[in-house]
Amino acid sequence: MPSALILIADGTEEMEFTIVYDTLVRAGVSCTSAFVSDEHREGNSGSYESNPPFAKGSRGIKILPDTYFSPQAATPDEYDLLVIPGGAKGAETISNNSPIQHLVREYLQAGKFVGMICAGSLAALRSGLSKQPLTSHPSVREQLKDAFEYSEDPVVVSGKLITSRGPGTAFPFALTLVELLCGKEKRAEVAGPMIFPPGTFA
Amino acid sequence: MPSALILIADGTEEMEFTIVYDTLVRAGVSCTSAFVSDEHREGNSGSYESNPPFAKGSRGIKILPDTYFSPQAATPDEYDLLVIPGGAKGAETISNNSPIQHLVREYLQAGKFVGMICAGSLAALRSGLSKQPLTSHPSVREQLKDAFEYSEDPVVVSGKLITSRGPGTAFPFALTLVELLCGKEKRAEVAGPMIFPPGTFA
Repeated sequence: MPSALILIADGTEEMEFTIVYDTLVRAGVSCTSAFVSDEHREGNSGSYESNPPFAKGSRGIKILPDTYFSPQAATPDEYDLLVIPGGAKGAETISNNSPIQHLVREYLQAGKFVGMICAGSLAALRSGLSKQPLTSHPSVREQLKDAFEYSEDPVVVSGKLITSRGPGTAFPFALTLVELLCGKEKRAEVAGPMIFPPGTFA
Repeated sequence: MPSALILIADGTEEMEFTIVYDTLVRAGVSCTSAFVSDEHREGNSGSYESNPPFAKGSRGIKILPDTYFSPQAATPDEYDLLVIPGGAKGAETISNNSPIQHLVREYLQAGKFVGMICAGSLAALRSGLSKQPLTSHPSVREQLKDAFEYSEDPVVVSGKLITSRGPGTAFPFALTLVELLCGKEKRAEVAGPMIFPPGTFA
């Protein structure tokens, strides 16, 4: 069974997080969400080890992650896919985390998949990835357009790096991850019962 | 500021819940999520009053609701919109709850909006609503097709009752609720930064 580690922080875009996690579970992917602490978060220091706090999403939905992010437990030996969702504040916290920057490079070097959506694509820049096709939310385009071959496609697959644009592209992003991990047939099998309107790019 | 009460239970489809809540917040709607207890839930009786437990979604995402459902605090005097998401088990719990059945009728009688998506449309049947246009997830079509004018449109607006089909129609459902509560311009203003792929029905 393929496995995915999906990062979450205060300020993560909760639709992007939820659509990816839920769609991957529908495909039979074993999903783990891991809470990445903002070092400036108040009142929680030292209390994380077994029970992560809830993450407060960008629009106020409170989600209880499965575990607390630990670099040692997040290696490409453990998971087939690492996902970095958007939401401005959550993406800042995640993409500025140097152990995560290191993991992004390790996953790609190990031939494992890395997915970034919306402002989550900042992690490609902060991890120092080479110039390659990439997309993101338009709000962070300026920061990315010179360092990458910037695209406005809904989903961009560049080797093992998959990037996407925002909540509105989260379904095709998640289904592309399903296809890469589980094949085209599984993608169609998962998309069917989700009942996309005729003509939707999914 | 318009306001919405969005119900959630164990087994609620977490994408449908999250897409509706988040999209309404983006439109400036004041959203409250309320946990509806499955009476058969173990180990939690009597402990709900101030801190609701997390709801475990249909694909395992754990969400902390804003409050515990109380019929007295959920009346159409308090909110402009009542939303019932899908997810087979969550929709069963919510649609079988007789105070909620009563509230569905009260909201419509008061000229307030009621939204139901996916298996959540079962609440229209259980609330004894009159025969009118309605849609749902195909998995519950058989239970609904004789009691309603069953449609396969992604979103069906029947007076103040708005129904929809599944996760794949949750964005157009949420944006239709935005349009009804806040107008067409607000719908366009909210949809823009969500970056739907060209041609998507949103």
